[in-house]
Amino acid sequence: MTPNEFREHGHAVIDWIATYREKIEERAVSRPIEPGAIRAALPKAPPRHAEPVSDIMADFESILLPGVLHWQHPSFFGFFPSNVELSSVLGDLLSTGLGVVGVSWEAGPALTELEETCIDWLRQMLGLRPAWRGAIQESASISTLIAIICARERYSGCAYTQGGIRQPAQPGMIYTSARAHSSVGKAAMIAGFGMDHIRTVPTQPGGSLDAQVLRAMIDQDIASGARPAAIVATTGATANTAMDDIAALADVAEEWGMWLHVDAAMGGAAMLLPECRSEWEGIERADSIVVSPNKWLGAAFDSSVMFVRDHEHLTRVMSTRPSYLRTQTDGQVTQLRDWSIPLGRRFRALKLWFLIREQGVEGLSKRIRRDMVNARRLAQLVEAEPEWRVTNKITLQTVCVRHEPPGFGDEELDTHTRAWAQAINESGKAYLTAARVDDAWMVRVSIGALGTQWQHIEKLWADMRAHAAENAALMQARTADSAMRGQKNAA
Amino acid sequence: MTPNEFREHGHAVIDWIATYREKIEERAVSRPIEPGAIRAALPKAPPRHAEPVSDIMADFESILLPGVLHWQHPSFFGFFPSNVELSSVLGDLLSTGLGVVGVSWEAGPALTELEETCIDWLRQMLGLRPAWRGAIQESASISTLIAIICARERYSGCAYTQGGIRQPAQPGMIYTSARAHSSVGKAAMIAGFGMDHIRTVPTQPGGSLDAQVLRAMIDQDIASGARPAAIVATTGATANTAMDDIAALADVAEEWGMWLHVDAAMGGAAMLLPECRSEWEGIERADSIVVSPNKWLGAAFDSSVMFVRDHEHLTRVMSTRPSYLRTQTDGQVTQLRDWSIPLGRRFRALKLWFLIREQGVEGLSKRIRRDMVNARRLAQLVEAEPEWRVTNKITLQTVCVRHEPPGFGDEELDTHTRAWAQAINESGKAYLTAARVDDAWMVRVSIGALGTQWQHIEKLWADMRAHAAENAALMQARTADSAMRGQKNAA
Repeated sequence: MTPNEFREHGHAVIDWIATYREKIEERAVSRPIEPGAIRAALPKAPPRHAEPVSDIMADFESILLPGVLHWQHPSFFGFFPSNVELSSVLGDLLSTGLGVVGVSWEAGPALTELEETCIDWLRQMLGLRPAWRGAIQESASISTLIAIICARERYSGCAYTQGGIRQPAQPGMIYTSARAHSSVGKAAMIAGFGMDHIRTVPTQPGGSLDAQVLRAMIDQDIASGARPAAIVATTGATANTAMDDIAALADVAEEWGMWLHVDAAMGGAAMLLPECRSEWEGIERADSIVVSPNKWLGAAFDSSVMFVRDHEHLTRVMSTRPSYLRTQTDGQVTQLRDWSIPLGRRFRALKLWFLIREQGVEGLSKRIRRDMVNARRLAQLVEAEPEWRVTNKITLQTVCVRHEPPGFGDEELDTHTRAWAQAINESGKAYLTAARVDDAWMVRVSIGALGTQWQHIEKLWADMRAHAAENAALMQARTADSAMRGQKNAA
Repeated sequence: MTPNEFREHGHAVIDWIATYREKIEERAVSRPIEPGAIRAALPKAPPRHAEPVSDIMADFESILLPGVLHWQHPSFFGFFPSNVELSSVLGDLLSTGLGVVGVSWEAGPALTELEETCIDWLRQMLGLRPAWRGAIQESASISTLIAIICARERYSGCAYTQGGIRQPAQPGMIYTSARAHSSVGKAAMIAGFGMDHIRTVPTQPGGSLDAQVLRAMIDQDIASGARPAAIVATTGATANTAMDDIAALADVAEEWGMWLHVDAAMGGAAMLLPECRSEWEGIERADSIVVSPNKWLGAAFDSSVMFVRDHEHLTRVMSTRPSYLRTQTDGQVTQLRDWSIPLGRRFRALKLWFLIREQGVEGLSKRIRRDMVNARRLAQLVEAEPEWRVTNKITLQTVCVRHEPPGFGDEELDTHTRAWAQAINESGKAYLTAARVDDAWMVRVSIGALGTQWQHIEKLWADMRAHAAENAALMQARTADSAMRGQKNAA
C-alpha cells in the first residue's frame, strides 16, 4: 500500500471509528451468533491476488461486525471495563505507523525512555514511592507470571533459572484468595510450582483473604516439608471486587521471607483517588504490583504495568545477553527486554502518554470517581427493592446482585439468575456477566465503560427488573404446570 | 476525546504517518543520542490538567522522533526486517478503535473466528498440512516459551503443571544449536528447566546443528540420569540465518520421544516460496513451529504465530476455567485463552487479514523473493572484492561480511569490524548490526525492509567500502605511529 493510498484509506478508517463511537448506542451491545458462523462466511483459502481495501472494509462490516461484542458501548456491564480512550488510539496508531521494535535501548532510545517516564508518571498517580520501577507488559497474566517467577527465584536462591528441576525437592507454596484471578493458577503451572502447591485461602465475610487461616496453612505446609514462597493479594477480585488486607498479608510475607505480589490490575485505577488509597494500605511493603491501564483507566490493550521494588532481582532473573545485542551503552541504560519475557516490544508507552496528557490526571480521576459514585447509587436502589439483594461490598465499581423471588430453592435461584442475565444479553439492550461466588451464581454489574452515565444504569436497572420478573413468572408457571400434571397423573 | 476531535486529530496522525513513510529516505536512519537525554527532556511529573493534542504531537516530533531508530527506512539493515505494511496498520487501527478484548469466544466471536481463519490461511501459505493449528502470540519468545512448557509437560507426563517441582529429580534436557535465539535459554529459565539443562550443540561448517554430536550428548546425559525433553531447531538463525536440518533432528526427537520445536520466526516467511521449502524438509514431523508475520512478512507487531500439531496437549497444559468465563458454548468453540498465556487479547487477526488480502499471496511472495535475490547479488559483489569475505551461507536474506585488510590480527579485525559498522550507523546513511559468530565479529547486512530496492543495497555497499577503507587506514596509521614511537623510545 502506498503512502497515498494509506492517506485515503486511513482517513476512511478514522472516520469509521469516529462514527462507530459516536453512534454506538444505536447498536445492540451484542447479537446472538452461532458458533462457527463467521468462520463459515470467510473464504477457506487466502487470496492469491491483491484485493481492494473497499472489499476488505465491506467484509469487515458485513461479516465480522455482527460477531463483535461492543466493549466500548455505554451499556456494556460485562467482564470488566476495558476502555480505549480515543486519545490512546492515536498514540497506538503512531506506534504502529513508526514500526519501531524495542529489542534494546539502541533499537529505539525514545521507546525505552518514554516508557520509563510514563511508568514513573503512573507511579506518582497511584501514590507509590519512588523506589517502585516497572515496565509495560502484554497483560496482567504476564505481569503475574513474572512476579511468580521472581518469587520462585527468591525462595530457591536463584536456583531454578540455573539448576532447574534438579534442585532439592522442597516444594515452594503459593497462597492466594479463593477470589483470585485465574492467572495466578496459570502462572504457578507455567512457572513449574504445580497446581498442587497453590493454596486457596478461604475468605472472611467481607471477601478478604483470612490471614489467620493463612498462617495455619503455612504452619501445616512447613511441617510437611514445604516452603512458603509467595502470597498473591487480590485487590478488586474479578468476580466481586473483594479487597484483601495488604498490611495483614505483608506481616505474614515478611515473617517467612515470602514474595508479596498485589493484583490491582483493574482496581488499581482507583488508587488515583486519594480517598481510596486506604484500601491499599501496606502496599509499600509488597514486592510487586500489577496495575493494567488497559482496563478501567482507558489505555488501549496491551498496556499492563508490572511494578517491582527489587528491580535488580527481576533483571537478574530475566536477563539474556546475546552478542547481536551487545553495545557500548551496556550498564548506562535500561534494557526493557530484561524486564519482560519477549525480546521485542511495540512503542507501547505512546498510548499511555497520549492518554495521560490528553485527559490530565484530573480528567482521569473524575471519570473513575463518577463510576464509583454510580456503583454505590445502583447498590442503594437494588437494596431498597424487595426480592433483590446486593451480594458484595461496594469497594470499587462492580455491584453483584441476585433477584430472589420467594419460594425459589438454591438451585432454582441459580437457574433463574443465569437465565435473566442471559435474557438481557440476548436482547442486546445491555451486557452482563454472571459468576459463581461461594457456591451461588450472581450477576455482576461492572460499571465503568467510558460512556456509561447514570442514565444508562437507570435504564439497565429497569431492564433487570423487567427481565427478572418475566423469567421468574415463567419459571413459576412451569413449576405450577408440572405440579398440576403431577396431580393429574397421581389421580 | 470526543469522536469529532478524534476525526480531526486522527486525520492529522494518518497524514503524519503517510508523509513519514513517503519521505523516510530523507531522514538519517538513526542519530547518535546520549543515554538519558530524552528522559531529561520530558516532564518529571504527569500533567494535572488536560493538554491539547497539538502540544503532544509537537513534543512527539521534537523530543521523541530524534530518538527513534527508523526500522521502516529502506536503508535499515539492522537486527531483522520488522516490516509494518501500511495495510496492516489499518487493520491494527480498527482493532484498537473497536477495543474488543478476547477473554473468551463470547467476548468477541469474530475475534476468535477470524484468528482461526487467518492462522489457517497462513498454514496454507507456508505449505503445512491441515493438522497444524495455532494462535497469535505476542512474540516469538512467548511462542517458544509455550513450546518449552509443552515439552516439559510431555516428558514429565503432565506432572509439572500439577505436582510441580516436587517431582522425581530426573532433570529434563533441552538441546539447541549454538546459533539459537536467546529466547530458547530464557524459556528454559522461565519454565524451570534451568540453564544447566540446556545443551548448546556445536554446528557443522554450514552452520547447522551437528546431529552426530547431538546423539552423543543425549547418550551421555541419559547415562548421567537425565532425560531428553526437547530439541529446538533453528531455521534462519538470528546472527547468520543458519539452517538446521529438521529431518535429521526429527529422527533424533522421535527416537527419544522428545518435543521438536522449530524456530522459523523470521525465516519462515520464505516458506511462502515453493522453491525454498526444501530447506524445511521434515517440518511435518515437528511438534511446534513459530513463524512471526510481524517480521519479514509485514504484519504489525505483535503477531507471532505458534503452530502446534497436538493441540489437545497444548490446551490441556494451558487451560483454566474460572466461573465468570463458563458459558453454554463450552466445547463447541475455540477458547484462545487456552492457547496462550494471557487471558485477554486484542483483535490481532485484523492486521494479518488486511495484510494478506491487500497484498495477496502473490504480492507477499514477490517481495520475499526480491529480498532473497538481492541478498545473493550483494554476496556476489562482496565475494568478488579483494579483502572482503562473506562469512555465511546465503540461505535467506542476510549477508554476513568481514573486511579483512592484510596484516590485521584477529583482535584488530574484530575492532575494525565493529568500528566501521558503527561509523556507518553514526553517519545515518544506513543501519547495520554486528554480531559475534564462532569467536569472531562480523557485520550482518539484514536485507528485507519493505522499501529496500537494489539501489539502496548498492549505495550501502559503496558506503561499506568507503567506511571500512577509512577505518583501516586510520588503524594502520595508528599502528605505524605507535611503532615509530616505540622505535624512538628504544633509540
